[in-house]
Amino acid sequence: MNDTLQRIGADMHGWARDLFPINRSLTGPGVRATLAYLQGLAPDLVVHSVPSGTDVLDWTVPPEWSVEEAYIEDAAGRRVVDIADHTLHLVGYSEPVDRRLSLAELQPHLHSLPEQPEAIPYVTSYYKRNWGFCLPHSLRETLTEQDYRVVIRSRLDENGALNYGEILLPGERAEEVFLSTYICHPSMANNELSGPVVLTAIARWLAALPARRYSYRLVFLPETIGSITYISRHLDHLKRHVVAGFNISCIGDERAYSYLPSRAGDTLADRAAQHALYQIDPGYDRYTWLQRGSDERQYCAPGVDLPVASVMRSKYHTYPEYHTSLDDLNLVTPAGLAGGFAALQDAVFIVENNRVPLATVLGEPQLGKRGLYPAISQRGSANASRVLRDILSYADGRHDLLAIADLLGLPFATVLAHAETLYGAGLLRDG
Amino acid sequence: MNDTLQRIGADMHGWARDLFPINRSLTGPGVRATLAYLQGLAPDLVVHSVPSGTDVLDWTVPPEWSVEEAYIEDAAGRRVVDIADHTLHLVGYSEPVDRRLSLAELQPHLHSLPEQPEAIPYVTSYYKRNWGFCLPHSLRETLTEQDYRVVIRSRLDENGALNYGEILLPGERAEEVFLSTYICHPSMANNELSGPVVLTAIARWLAALPARRYSYRLVFLPETIGSITYISRHLDHLKRHVVAGFNISCIGDERAYSYLPSRAGDTLADRAAQHALYQIDPGYDRYTWLQRGSDERQYCAPGVDLPVASVMRSKYHTYPEYHTSLDDLNLVTPAGLAGGFAALQDAVFIVENNRVPLATVLGEPQLGKRGLYPAISQRGSANASRVLRDILSYADGRHDLLAIADLLGLPFATVLAHAETLYGAGLLRDG
Amino acid sequence: MNDTLQRIGADMHGWARDLFPINRSLTGPGVRATLAYLQGLAPDLVVHSVPSGTDVLDWTVPPEWSVEEAYIEDAAGRRVVDIADHTLHLVGYSEPVDRRLSLAELQPHLHSLPEQPEAIPYVTSYYKRNWGFCLPHSLRETLTEQDYRVVIRSRLDENGALNYGEILLPGERAEEVFLSTYICHPSMANNELSGPVVLTAIARWLAALPARRYSYRLVFLPETIGSITYISRHLDHLKRHVVAGFNISCIGDERAYSYLPSRAGDTLADRAAQHALYQIDPGYDRYTWLQRGSDERQYCAPGVDLPVASVMRSKYHTYPEYHTSLDDLNLVTPAGLAGGFAALQDAVFIVENNRVPLATVLGEPQLGKRGLYPAISQRGSANASRVLRDILSYADGRHDLLAIADLLGLPFATVLAHAETLYGAGLLRDG
Repeated sequence: MNDTLQRIGADMHGWARDLFPINRSLTGPGVRATLAYLQGLAPDLVVHSVPSGTDVLDWTVPPEWSVEEAYIEDAAGRRVVDIADHTLHLVGYSEPVDRRLSLAELQPHLHSLPEQPEAIPYVTSYYKRNWGFCLPHSLRETLTEQDYRVVIRSRLDENGALNYGEILLPGERAEEVFLSTYICHPSMANNELSGPVVLTAIARWLAALPARRYSYRLVFLPETIGSITYISRHLDHLKRHVVAGFNISCIGDERAYSYLPSRAGDTLADRAAQHALYQIDPGYDRYTWLQRGSDERQYCAPGVDLPVASVMRSKYHTYPEYHTSLDDLNLVTPAGLAGGFAALQDAVFIVENNRVPLATVLGEPQLGKRGLYPAISQRGSANASRVLRDILSYADGRHDLLAIADLLGLPFATVLAHAETLYGAGLLRDG
Repeated sequence: MNDTLQRIGADMHGWARDLFPINRSLTGPGVRATLAYLQGLAPDLVVHSVPSGTDVLDWTVPPEWSVEEAYIEDAAGRRVVDIADHTLHLVGYSEPVDRRLSLAELQPHLHSLPEQPEAIPYVTSYYKRNWGFCLPHSLRETLTEQDYRVVIRSRLDENGALNYGEILLPGERAEEVFLSTYICHPSMANNELSGPVVLTAIARWLAALPARRYSYRLVFLPETIGSITYISRHLDHLKRHVVAGFNISCIGDERAYSYLPSRAGDTLADRAAQHALYQIDPGYDRYTWLQRGSDERQYCAPGVDLPVASVMRSKYHTYPEYHTSLDDLNLVTPAGLAGGFAALQDAVFIVENNRVPLATVLGEPQLGKRGLYPAISQRGSANASRVLRDILSYADGRHDLLAIADLLGLPFATVLAHAETLYGAGLLRDG
Repeated sequence: MNDTLQRIGADMHGWARDLFPINRSLTGPGVRATLAYLQGLAPDLVVHSVPSGTDVLDWTVPPEWSVEEAYIEDAAGRRVVDIADHTLHLVGYSEPVDRRLSLAELQPHLHSLPEQPEAIPYVTSYYKRNWGFCLPHSLRETLTEQDYRVVIRSRLDENGALNYGEILLPGERAEEVFLSTYICHPSMANNELSGPVVLTAIARWLAALPARRYSYRLVFLPETIGSITYISRHLDHLKRHVVAGFNISCIGDERAYSYLPSRAGDTLADRAAQHALYQIDPGYDRYTWLQRGSDERQYCAPGVDLPVASVMRSKYHTYPEYHTSLDDLNLVTPAGLAGGFAALQDAVFIVENNRVPLATVLGEPQLGKRGLYPAISQRGSANASRVLRDILSYADGRHDLLAIADLLGLPFATVLAHAETLYGAGLLRDG
């Protein structure tokens, strides 16, 4: 890993540490605080607000949820569970409560994982009014029969809003690359602070490029309801402009590289993701559409059909810490984030630089007179120009550079460099 | 096997026992007796008659063949071979004979199987005038040099007819499912009384359905000349109306399930047959078009091109009793017939119930508000609605329910049940 | 190997022996002498001449090169290297020299192969003025420090010409089969005297055929610049008329049969080559387009796109004697050439005789009344007519005879013979 990448990894991990304690959910002040922090890193980020109650496709934007405090107090007045200790302690979207209950009455409102007795599970109840607390099973087993006081000072504001962030980086073309991640998870790291911090680093890289062929649209939104809201507002635009997109989630640990296809499976985004991951790790994990579970569910739904694939490290549902307090900033590391960043950057680089080359001369050109071929022909001497001639032989308007790289079994960047030599010599033009 | 299926198996075996002794051939009273018996079980069956000498495609309907008696008598007047003992003793379409012959003169007219010395082989000479007897090789070897009298009181009636049975069960649509079996084999059981009795049971099942989407056309005809005759009369109709068809033969023993494709290989009938058989036995025998040997030869011939696949148990040519007296009602059992019936019924059920679903909302619908999703979201809770969401994700107008079932690796009936839930909730409509 | 083939093999080896000593290059008297010799064997061969300096696609026809003598003399006046001993001793297109040099000054102009110390390597410098000698490494190591005289009496004539030979054998159709080989290699045998002698034998076979469906165009030209010149003059004609083509090179040793595809990979030429080679040796070597290295580079270039595949024995670059003096007439044998001839002949035979059969009757025809089916039907009796019925079943206008042969796993010639029976019986017509 080079120095630049190492530095970016350290930066991203620092951002994640700053953002970790914030109590995020579908809506509310935690989302806004998160977006404000990211705005400090990527000033192009614009925060949008959609009123609660707005109809979006088949859904309705929920009331805005906020929490002042939430705890369980035992008969002695000691707080045995307190959201101040960990945001996961409170079931997401819990309604306000202030009651005394016996342990038996309390139990149905408690959530824990007997198989992972030290983990606090992540539980939400967005669309049905409810309340509850999550706690380590080991703690739950110490609770004794007594009167508990449950206090949840939360608010479900029908006049609130759903917020999301959006960055538009214009390029030479109106065609867009679409990048999406989500900011609705409270204190967890791979799923999901890795997505927002990696996408922020990508935004900074893209913003600093001297030129962009494509325009880039990056969104930071709550999962499901956020992407549905976004689609409901911008579907026509997206369908007309997006040439490739990536959903960014679970991209910060060090254990694996993973790919989950778009529903179509063979879009430019899929091909770029597969090529980029193969170059990093030929044994990367390949999932199928049936194993999906993030916002590609919306982006690739029938009638939406955007070319959105997922580039991940350890995929949601596949690692033991998933959706628990064990998914923390020890699991997600600077190196893990840097690797995820590099993989996504490679995939985006491929999309940005891919093109369809067309040979400008019939037959093989005379490379020798252009200094691209050894003057003396003897056994083995032709190898130096082999890649040039292979690229030319596929420059028929039916193969893009990415297809040629796959055919030649070479990294895209290598093929691009050779193609640029040929473009420079006037032997290729865009088809 | 459930009770209903067990009862149907017993019924079919009983019908086969009744029909077994009848001397069937391409034409003649045995065919008519067989069709009359089936008419008793399926009153919609209509018997058609096509005069001998009628030109049908490249063929001519042969004279009608009937036999009063046929035997070989030894010098002592004992009948050593007699059609009264077994219909296979006489070569099909034998011309009339009443002669005395030496054993040497008789030998060229005798057929036996040295490798299966107790079996009577099945031999015919439909289109070249000839006569002969078939007998166990063990019996043939006991014949001694003496004068034999050969008597065949048969008739080849140029003014006769070819008969076949036809059942038309109208449905909501004019589009038809076409089911064909043959009634030209004398006393054999898998090839072929299994086909007619299974198809009769299917006819009774279809007739009893409260509603049928498709119309169903079932034919019981002599092999080759019968299907050619039928095609010559109805080709335009068949080509315009048949959406799927099955050829039914060798469907009564217990040893295997088998599939032989249509010539096209990928028709709805092929897909339904393969899905149905896979659900019953993932190791079912898959044959190729090159291994064909029944009326798909006609239905799938160039220019006919009907979508007709074969669902079988032990395929013709592949089992040792094939085309001998050993292919009897011990080989074909109630359980074997019931299994064949169930496989064919499943394939027909798939065709009848298959459709192309189209999602009615953009993005994933909110299943929760329709009671189709767990209210609380925690690790693992989404599994219950997984199939619903998978079906919705493929409801793009390019996948029928059968394709979705194959993609999901689930039985068609399971996918259909879930799809009906979604249709009921207004989340799917027909595409 | 039959007698005819054995005789052709011996003939071809004799021709190669006659041609071996001639000093061929891209241009010059050696090429003309070679073409004149071949004209003696195939009188239809016409020699074409294209002036040096002519622009051809991206290239320019080079000056004509001729050599009177070329040697290195040591201080004692002994010729240590002399083109009179072997044409490979002189670097192709060496410019004239008459100088005295020290060994140190001479070394940069010497070429040898340390790993093959007895081999003279094949080296050229067509497009950059240069000179040099090639010699066995063992000889080079005996050279001592002294004054050497280098004499090359060569000429690079800007008013010269490039020559190639062409044979056109008209057939019933204007559509052409295109066969190309090259005549620019000096004294080597597999790469390349095998190509010209095998193609000459093919020319004689084609010329002697009583009738030809296709017209045949055979060219004998210098590699790369020759095919580029030919394409520059005839591209439109070739694109309009060529239905299949073969590049013929490295087709005379006994170690392997090889196939290298056209760029498209699935043309009639590819299919015929693969079928022919598979029938001879199911384990024949299959190369890919990325392993190309002969004139298919030009014929299949983008925008040229001719259906030209390569049928070879041991492919260039794959055998140790390649491009050295070890590639001689011990490596290339009468049997090796005969095998190469037979493989190419088979591929051409397939192209010539391939057609798309169409069944003339609906359903299976009654083969019995045409004497094509056993009169008596009993177990196994149908096999005799199986191939006939299989051919008929695929005679739907979408399968040519070659496709049917591949489907049936039978040699093309066997399927052709059976198809001719069916054509003769009026059961097939051309589709």
